[in-house]
Amino acid sequence: MALRWGIASSGKIANDFVTGIKGLPASEHQVVAIAARSLASADKFAKTHNIPKAYEGYEQLAKDADVQVVYVGVLNPQHYEVVLLLLNHGKHVLCEKPFAINHKQAKEMIDLAKKKNLFVMEAIWSRCFPVYREVRKLLDEGVLGEVKYAAVDFGFPIADVDRIKNKDLGGGAILDLGIYILQFQQFVFRGLKPVKVLASGHLNDGGVDDSASAILTYPNGKTAVVTCNATAQMTNEGVIIGTKGTIRIPMFWCPTSYSLNGQVKEFPLIENNGNFNYINSAGLGYEAADVRKTILSGKIESEQVTHEETLQLAAWLDTLRKETGVVFPADS
Amino acid sequence: MALRWGIASSGKIANDFVTGIKGLPASEHQVVAIAARSLASADKFAKTHNIPKAYEGYEQLAKDADVQVVYVGVLNPQHYEVVLLLLNHGKHVLCEKPFAINHKQAKEMIDLAKKKNLFVMEAIWSRCFPVYREVRKLLDEGVLGEVKYAAVDFGFPIADVDRIKNKDLGGGAILDLGIYILQFQQFVFRGLKPVKVLASGHLNDGGVDDSASAILTYPNGKTAVVTCNATAQMTNEGVIIGTKGTIRIPMFWCPTSYSLNGQVKEFPLIENNGNFNYINSAGLGYEAADVRKTILSGKIESEQVTHEETLQLAAWLDTLRKETGVVFPADS
Repeated sequence: MALRWGIASSGKIANDFVTGIKGLPASEHQVVAIAARSLASADKFAKTHNIPKAYEGYEQLAKDADVQVVYVGVLNPQHYEVVLLLLNHGKHVLCEKPFAINHKQAKEMIDLAKKKNLFVMEAIWSRCFPVYREVRKLLDEGVLGEVKYAAVDFGFPIADVDRIKNKDLGGGAILDLGIYILQFQQFVFRGLKPVKVLASGHLNDGGVDDSASAILTYPNGKTAVVTCNATAQMTNEGVIIGTKGTIRIPMFWCPTSYSLNGQVKEFPLIENNGNFNYINSAGLGYEAADVRKTILSGKIESEQVTHEETLQLAAWLDTLRKETGVVFPADS
Repeated sequence: MALRWGIASSGKIANDFVTGIKGLPASEHQVVAIAARSLASADKFAKTHNIPKAYEGYEQLAKDADVQVVYVGVLNPQHYEVVLLLLNHGKHVLCEKPFAINHKQAKEMIDLAKKKNLFVMEAIWSRCFPVYREVRKLLDEGVLGEVKYAAVDFGFPIADVDRIKNKDLGGGAILDLGIYILQFQQFVFRGLKPVKVLASGHLNDGGVDDSASAILTYPNGKTAVVTCNATAQMTNEGVIIGTKGTIRIPMFWCPTSYSLNGQVKEFPLIENNGNFNYINSAGLGYEAADVRKTILSGKIESEQVTHEETLQLAAWLDTLRKETGVVFPADS
């Protein structure tokens, strides 16, 4: 049975998500409607992707009885409003990361989904890649012994991009890139609560962060060290060190390989000849497939990205912003 | 003209230093005396290495008119006392890292050397490797553009070794391993002062640290993230990221290669068939050669490890210990 998707946003990532879905069986996924701020954009997107319905604004999408689940790819400051709208109209939701501007918003969104018994998930697509599933298995089996350390840095020279540099667009390295590094170390130390979170960074003239680094100190000698940086291309590698060995994950946010003590294992990406804006976006199909499986099973929470994890991530993002001095209007 | 060395300590690292010297021309370096806490140890060491004189305790070594410079490889808590003794008897000194237990001791040692116009250097042998000299050149030439980020981790599973786990031996990952990671980022951001230093770690039951991580936030968007860990084998790689590329230095503390944007360049180690305890110890010859060159030129300070850098490193070690809660008797 095909899951019937609506798409909120006609932006680059929405393009990639819809294209990613095309790599999956048409019998399982169908995109039935697209909504954007302007009808012209929605129409253009619909035409490009052969989507039957195009809407101006998100209300009609929310009211479209044919739509089961909506992928939300709007700008960060709009997530809260659009997700609440959709949930209030009975739609399941997959919302791009960061889920919200702050923990307060995230909690309200998840509380509403629970109240309405609707699926909601923060679109941390990384978690749905086969590499993450395999590494999870290795960690659970104790292949690394006791995991002591996780390190990851993530960055590109994007500090001058509007979406990143402007406070009113919910900018900053922390929200855009930081969510990825935090989810990585959360994945490694799943279920543990740090005893201390230290962070520091650099702000641009507009008061949003160009870079930030954090140390998360966990009990029992475990540490995560994470960095995001919008001013240079970082190594973009995740490293997990245990008493018995090391796992390295190149391109940790959308990985197609990992190495265990130097032995590389490759995972070919879903075949997809579509036009993508971002690297390895065919892998968005893994996420869409996970959403379908979860919704069909009647659950409202993905096993890959639980609600508790999303709330924890939102709290950590708040901490990183607080320590580096980034304040958004939504925080007041 | 041969520089006439005395050796204070008959330990593993002293063995490696003396063996390292053997890789250099005998016309340039000569080991004339060895002193250890017990005469038996000194005698044994002298026999092994064919050293003419062996002393019990360090006073006779200090008074030996034949000795020009002393390599100090005693345990951390003894550095201060032994170095002061040697300087007071007019010897030049190369003292193992960490130079002292804290900044207060380090300052007193360096002040005395200056007053006596004697050479003194913290034995950060890493700095004397050809890789460091080449990387210095690349950074100065701007090959990486503007350097934004330095990251390094350093660790081995040595938390149960007496020297590391015991407070009265000046133990802890910070003193033993932390000095290396701090000197690495200092090398990268040479001359800059951080605006903030954050650190966190884990203590063992005896109150010394098994691990520590720190973020050093520098002006103009520059950041260093460093980790030392005595509970697991870390990646032990130094990474330098600039706006135009990345340098990686495997085995950053005694490197024989680096890569610039993935291009590897190798630097063969000094040929040496001696028996070493530690990896790449033949490279201690680079350090000995630098000491000779500096002393012969009449200078009291190495260009590779300046007095100011040693004092800065000592201050950072104090900060890391303070933030993680490690207090030594010498701190009071």
